[in-house]
Amino acid sequence: MAKPLIMLGAGGHAAVLAEILLQQDRELIAVVSPEPIKESSPLFGVTQIISDEEFLTIYSPQDVELVNGVGSIPKNNIRSQLLTFFTEKGYRFARVISPKAILSNFLTLEEGVQIMPGAIIQVNTVVGKNSIINTGAIVEHDCTIGINNHIAPGVTLSGGVITGSDVHVGTGANIIQGIHIGQAAVVGAGTTISRNVPAGQVLIPARSRVIS
Amino acid sequence: MAKPLIMLGAGGHAAVLAEILLQQDRELIAVVSPEPIKESSPLFGVTQIISDEEFLTIYSPQDVELVNGVGSIPKNNIRSQLLTFFTEKGYRFARVISPKAILSNFLTLEEGVQIMPGAIIQVNTVVGKNSIINTGAIVEHDCTIGINNHIAPGVTLSGGVITGSDVHVGTGANIIQGIHIGQAAVVGAGTTISRNVPAGQVLIPARSRVIS
Amino acid sequence: MAKPLIMLGAGGHAAVLAEILLQQDRELIAVVSPEPIKESSPLFGVTQIISDEEFLTIYSPQDVELVNGVGSIPKNNIRSQLLTFFTEKGYRFARVISPKAILSNFLTLEEGVQIMPGAIIQVNTVVGKNSIINTGAIVEHDCTIGINNHIAPGVTLSGGVITGSDVHVGTGANIIQGIHIGQAAVVGAGTTISRNVPAGQVLIPARSRVIS
Repeated sequence: MAKPLIMLGAGGHAAVLAEILLQQDRELIAVVSPEPIKESSPLFGVTQIISDEEFLTIYSPQDVELVNGVGSIPKNNIRSQLLTFFTEKGYRFARVISPKAILSNFLTLEEGVQIMPGAIIQVNTVVGKNSIINTGAIVEHDCTIGINNHIAPGVTLSGGVITGSDVHVGTGANIIQGIHIGQAAVVGAGTTISRNVPAGQVLIPARSRVIS
Repeated sequence: MAKPLIMLGAGGHAAVLAEILLQQDRELIAVVSPEPIKESSPLFGVTQIISDEEFLTIYSPQDVELVNGVGSIPKNNIRSQLLTFFTEKGYRFARVISPKAILSNFLTLEEGVQIMPGAIIQVNTVVGKNSIINTGAIVEHDCTIGINNHIAPGVTLSGGVITGSDVHVGTGANIIQGIHIGQAAVVGAGTTISRNVPAGQVLIPARSRVIS
Repeated sequence: MAKPLIMLGAGGHAAVLAEILLQQDRELIAVVSPEPIKESSPLFGVTQIISDEEFLTIYSPQDVELVNGVGSIPKNNIRSQLLTFFTEKGYRFARVISPKAILSNFLTLEEGVQIMPGAIIQVNTVVGKNSIINTGAIVEHDCTIGINNHIAPGVTLSGGVITGSDVHVGTGANIIQGIHIGQAAVVGAGTTISRNVPAGQVLIPARSRVIS
């Protein structure tokens, strides 16, 4: 039977996740956040735990599963640190998959994967642990997405794209078929990628033009 | 009870709106347009009124609600002028929200807002009066869209984007998180925005390259 | 009554098509491919025919309809050659239209058209023979797409775009309203088009910038 869930974080990404969980009638019993929860958030009214330390004194890995509610920003690794910290203590991370995503029946979605509304993932794709396929992103057939990736809203990955761990593909970026993106690379918002990207490289689009 | 609707305009944008209204079995009793209605349009066969003046002699603000069927083009303000003209005379504009859009339950959608098929709007976003979220556009959590905006097809707005009034974000443009777009700015089709845009500024992408 | 279907090809594009056909309970009786079918493919287990020549000795045009499972790559015309070759022998190509696409009721979709999951096509648009509207692509109202086109994943075509035959619009490209794209032109992935494109022209975006 599914264990009750604990949300780590209470910002915008956590709010989107919480709304999916509500739609699915999943049991979200607490949120861990030091800051007050906004009244406008789906998390408002959920029992609040102030710190990771307090959380650890209340719930054991046998009692609950975690939801990683921390969003992903390039060059900031709080999200992946949470995965490591709690995994070492024996906790498991639940997958959160929007019923409004369009998913092939031939996918591998690893632990803690988050698939947001309107995302589309085609046949024979693998999404690695703790990765986010964000709102309306398209991941074509035969892709392999590494762990701790953020495929941001509106991204399009063509068929056969392979990414290393800790890759960020920013809002609305496009990658053509068969490209490899190296570990911890950052494909900036709106960038089009048509060659392989080495590990750690950061790319952004050409400068736009101000015409008046 | 919902009042019967009158469509202002009979072009492509009005046709898309009319198809949504038909799907929802809403009562569309007339279309105001000086030009003949194309046989291929969902508006074909609806009672035609030739001018705004003729319309005003037939229907009072108590009888009907209006649908703003005029599309939005940068630097052309017929659409917002219609809002002002008819609002001053006491008419109200109906919202048109496609059942094929994906909408959070935590939104504020003001009078006359139009949400087209496949659009996605996430938690805690506000869309201002008379604004269009067009086909397949993505608006992430915590955005505030001003009045008379056109968020064109295929656009992606990341979390926390704020726009002034009369902003145009063109086809397929991308805006990263937390950006402010000033009043009457034009983000040209395909532009990626990663800094705030002052009021009235017009931006377009870098020139593409002809390679053969 | 619908005839049983034969898939030509067994790569990634064919796999996506096969999954749509499975969802629709359509009768797919064989796949033509010289290479072994991957176990991870929805085509695994379907009767395999090794060559077009073998196929021609088994099934007549009265018995079956074909599905063009060969994907479309710029400047490679195997896909359109298959259409010509089998059409001259009297075979017909089935349309494959994902139930997860969002389609106007006012469309003309010619023989062999393929509409992938999450694609959106608005009112009064025509899609020519053998053309693909790929995953999540947006085609606005009043477009006319020629034959043998590939509108790749994540593309956005604004209203009234007209394309010639054999046009490729690459992943995530954007075209503004009313543009004409000439025969056999290639709009590279991520390119934004705001002027007409002559026949045969190949365009790509401005070079991206490596910032670290």
